[in-house]
Amino acid sequence: MSFTEFPSRLLEDAVNEFSSLPGIGRKTAFRLVMNLLRRDQGEVTRFGESIIRLRSEINYCKNCNNISDTDTCSICSDPRRDRSIICVVENIQDVMAIENTRQYKGLYHVLGGIISPIDGIGPADLKIDSLEEKVKPGGISEIILALSTTMEGDTTNFYLYKRLSKYNSFITTLARGVAVGDELEYTDEITLGKAINNRNPYQQ
Amino acid sequence: MSFTEFPSRLLEDAVNEFSSLPGIGRKTAFRLVMNLLRRDQGEVTRFGESIIRLRSEINYCKNCNNISDTDTCSICSDPRRDRSIICVVENIQDVMAIENTRQYKGLYHVLGGIISPIDGIGPADLKIDSLEEKVKPGGISEIILALSTTMEGDTTNFYLYKRLSKYNSFITTLARGVAVGDELEYTDEITLGKAINNRNPYQQ
Repeated sequence: MSFTEFPSRLLEDAVNEFSSLPGIGRKTAFRLVMNLLRRDQGEVTRFGESIIRLRSEINYCKNCNNISDTDTCSICSDPRRDRSIICVVENIQDVMAIENTRQYKGLYHVLGGIISPIDGIGPADLKIDSLEEKVKPGGISEIILALSTTMEGDTTNFYLYKRLSKYNSFITTLARGVAVGDELEYTDEITLGKAINNRNPYQQ
Repeated sequence: MSFTEFPSRLLEDAVNEFSSLPGIGRKTAFRLVMNLLRRDQGEVTRFGESIIRLRSEINYCKNCNNISDTDTCSICSDPRRDRSIICVVENIQDVMAIENTRQYKGLYHVLGGIISPIDGIGPADLKIDSLEEKVKPGGISEIILALSTTMEGDTTNFYLYKRLSKYNSFITTLARGVAVGDELEYTDEITLGKAINNRNPYQQ
């Protein structure tokens, strides 16, 4: 079934909007729209308004650039967090992923992207100046570079190291190694090589 | 990654709304919402408004119950359609599927569902009275029952036949047979049996 003709302009508009989302084809979009049509009007209005408000009312933390409903996000305003450690991440998904581990008690700095010459993204497009301003006065004991293990991530790590190493902060990156649950024979050789070189004492 | 905690209430609301859609889990919903966040505000507002308007402004054709932006849908108001043939379908998706074949030139009647005792849907929940009102005065030469080939479809076909056969209309159903492109050895025996019994003269 290819939906070339819709019986209603309103229906067609809604299907077009949904199918503009990543991974949503026209058939799926139509199915979603038909589901909305069967709901109460109040419920559908709430759906639409939550989308409009999301984009128009959302704030970004003025300290770490994380998404927030307030000027300063709940992490930056939490007095129990260690203000001397900054974890540098690409985006807010990464903040949420690290928060979900419940292993990290420092602050974050969201770059809003990663250096990628092929996509035309250079250092000036990222929140690097504000990161340097935070590190410059001193008082930051550790900067964790928690970027993806891709070429772009490595490039960004190198750039950040060059700019930040002159201040007296300890710069670290996430441990590379065999993922929990992975079988050795299917682990790529670069990861396995790093895992052997960075081996740890056995802990019972 | 299980998103138990969101840094923003607005973000969480939008993810909750998207994940209420069929086939959209929380991870997908989050990905869609992050896509919307990266767009221009005007574009996102248009998305939200198209959803709200869809539900609040949509009309149903007063003749056939098809979705329409006007009182009478474009099919019912088209003077080239044959008003003496009514094709009875379950929902508007079925209207669109048949329209896409470009083989049918009569009118439709959308029941708005199908008799299904297990889901508590009886004849009174469907647009059957208005169908009878259309057939009763005469002038309808054929009623095509184009319902699903399920037990519920067969039940509804039987009920409609009982109610409508006393008026002088020819009542037909869609042809059952082997689907175009299907291999015989994988065709179920009931379909294959009907295909043999209803065989047609060979056409070159």
